[in-house]
Amino acid sequence: MSRILRVAAAQMGPNQRADARSAILARMVALLDQAADRGADLVVFPELAFTTFFPRWLLETGEVDAYFEAAMPNPEVAALFDRARERRVGFYVGYAELAGDRHFNSAITVGPDGTILGKYRKVHLPGSVEPRPGDRFQQLEKRYFDYGDLGFPAFWGPKAWQEPVLGMLVCNDRRWPEAWRCYGLQGVELMLIGYNSAAYDPNGGTTESEGLRTFHSTLAVQANAYMNATWAVSVAKAGNEDGSGLIGGSCIVDPNGVVVAQAETLGDEVLVAEVDLDACRQGKEKMFNFAAHRRPQHYGAIVDQVGAVLPPKPAAAERLSA
Amino acid sequence: MSRILRVAAAQMGPNQRADARSAILARMVALLDQAADRGADLVVFPELAFTTFFPRWLLETGEVDAYFEAAMPNPEVAALFDRARERRVGFYVGYAELAGDRHFNSAITVGPDGTILGKYRKVHLPGSVEPRPGDRFQQLEKRYFDYGDLGFPAFWGPKAWQEPVLGMLVCNDRRWPEAWRCYGLQGVELMLIGYNSAAYDPNGGTTESEGLRTFHSTLAVQANAYMNATWAVSVAKAGNEDGSGLIGGSCIVDPNGVVVAQAETLGDEVLVAEVDLDACRQGKEKMFNFAAHRRPQHYGAIVDQVGAVLPPKPAAAERLSA
Repeated sequence: MSRILRVAAAQMGPNQRADARSAILARMVALLDQAADRGADLVVFPELAFTTFFPRWLLETGEVDAYFEAAMPNPEVAALFDRARERRVGFYVGYAELAGDRHFNSAITVGPDGTILGKYRKVHLPGSVEPRPGDRFQQLEKRYFDYGDLGFPAFWGPKAWQEPVLGMLVCNDRRWPEAWRCYGLQGVELMLIGYNSAAYDPNGGTTESEGLRTFHSTLAVQANAYMNATWAVSVAKAGNEDGSGLIGGSCIVDPNGVVVAQAETLGDEVLVAEVDLDACRQGKEKMFNFAAHRRPQHYGAIVDQVGAVLPPKPAAAERLSA
Repeated sequence: MSRILRVAAAQMGPNQRADARSAILARMVALLDQAADRGADLVVFPELAFTTFFPRWLLETGEVDAYFEAAMPNPEVAALFDRARERRVGFYVGYAELAGDRHFNSAITVGPDGTILGKYRKVHLPGSVEPRPGDRFQQLEKRYFDYGDLGFPAFWGPKAWQEPVLGMLVCNDRRWPEAWRCYGLQGVELMLIGYNSAAYDPNGGTTESEGLRTFHSTLAVQANAYMNATWAVSVAKAGNEDGSGLIGGSCIVDPNGVVVAQAETLGDEVLVAEVDLDACRQGKEKMFNFAAHRRPQHYGAIVDQVGAVLPPKPAAAERLSA
């Protein structure tokens, strides 16, 4: 059997702080058109695709508010929704969501008829609430966003897509195997992920090069796709945003963890791959047949504790003197 | 800071069913000597290192029993323990453990003075209880072994090793992120793993080549080491055991998920690497600072369910006709 879906990764180059929304939308529509011209059914855009990655700055409340969308769609993003419906193409897109007085780093997946099929709010917010003194660029997601409150809700794609079980993550979530497993436990066949990842260590260290951080990004997606027997599309906003570097490396990964397509630039770039959803069956029915092989009675620590707790140290008398 | 430990992976070539225990021990002692000559403090041997990988056959009870050790150490393995103590080298070794009337696929870590520092019993038993009709080679671990009952107990290495927090897994466990995370939540700095992995799909499929299965083996260790900010040593019994192929690919992986050494043969082969335990700190204190970033309130499914449960399908009326 084969259930084929054509999926595109629409990597975006940088959005500068001064870029007009209309200019960003025009680039996104052009990427969507390229993907549709190449037969894509579903196009994956990055995290916070409509704006610059504003959590890198300590901003006044008024300026922060301007980056958030109070409704989705809305007139400021309508050009993308309209073109997608016209081309009968669906898409994943990340955006800053204002929900009442709460703020989320969210993503939605839109079907080929414009229906919103699923929504996700980022659970694993990196960075800090308070800025790091003296650093030119910050990582203030914990300041500007509330933690996602929807869990990891898998959902069905439409018949035109062969009815895949879909899941969404946002950026840092892709490094957390718990997030993937929660989707794996819902039978996910295709994970959609957008990201903005600093090309240097955003946590203030200096030991991680751009190459190492791109390797980490790809590695996490490969292994978690393999361990959950799912396809994955992981898409960057890349390049130099107002002096701050973002890695590229957008990729489409199969259920063996093999990269089937990967971006070569740090700019706007479309990757398209044919995704056979039934290629997930080998893993789901054998090596990762969860019902046959998982042992949750030994996994309690995963939910019972948050941080690491070291094992008790043997008393001095019992310790090896070697 | 740096806390340096010299670690060796002692990959073993095949143990044939007809091989005398004394011949196997002699090879293990030779590998230990090579590692000690190269300055290793700790040598990692494979899963079921003292025997052939007997779960590939449907055997009579009497023959199965002969593969199990009722005590550890015992006279049949004393040569290895004696030489290790003499060389002031510790080791991890996998073996079939008879504990009363229970059978486990176990591993122990022995300190440089011969003390048993920790014991682990394999939690994730692959394969089946009943043989697959018509197959030349089986995977009958679920028939011959009881599921491990010790959980994932991290433990301290001695001062001579810079007091690392150590963890052990056996073979298939390395593909299960839950197992790694339970050790990560104890602050593990060095994971010790032995394996015997079929070079073809042991679950009866024909889609996985030897190359792909070696890739899977390495990928799972790389990503789980990265996501738990730990070093890992993953060691094969490799090559052709009585007509059944085992992958090699033994490797030493750093806390970035980078392979620092990997076996090139399918035979007896020693890898040695200098392991700076403090290289775990970058990950543990920043990206994978669990206390700061994990959200266990959303991980409930990991312990509340065993197998996958698909999300509810939208009613026909709500489904996209697109």
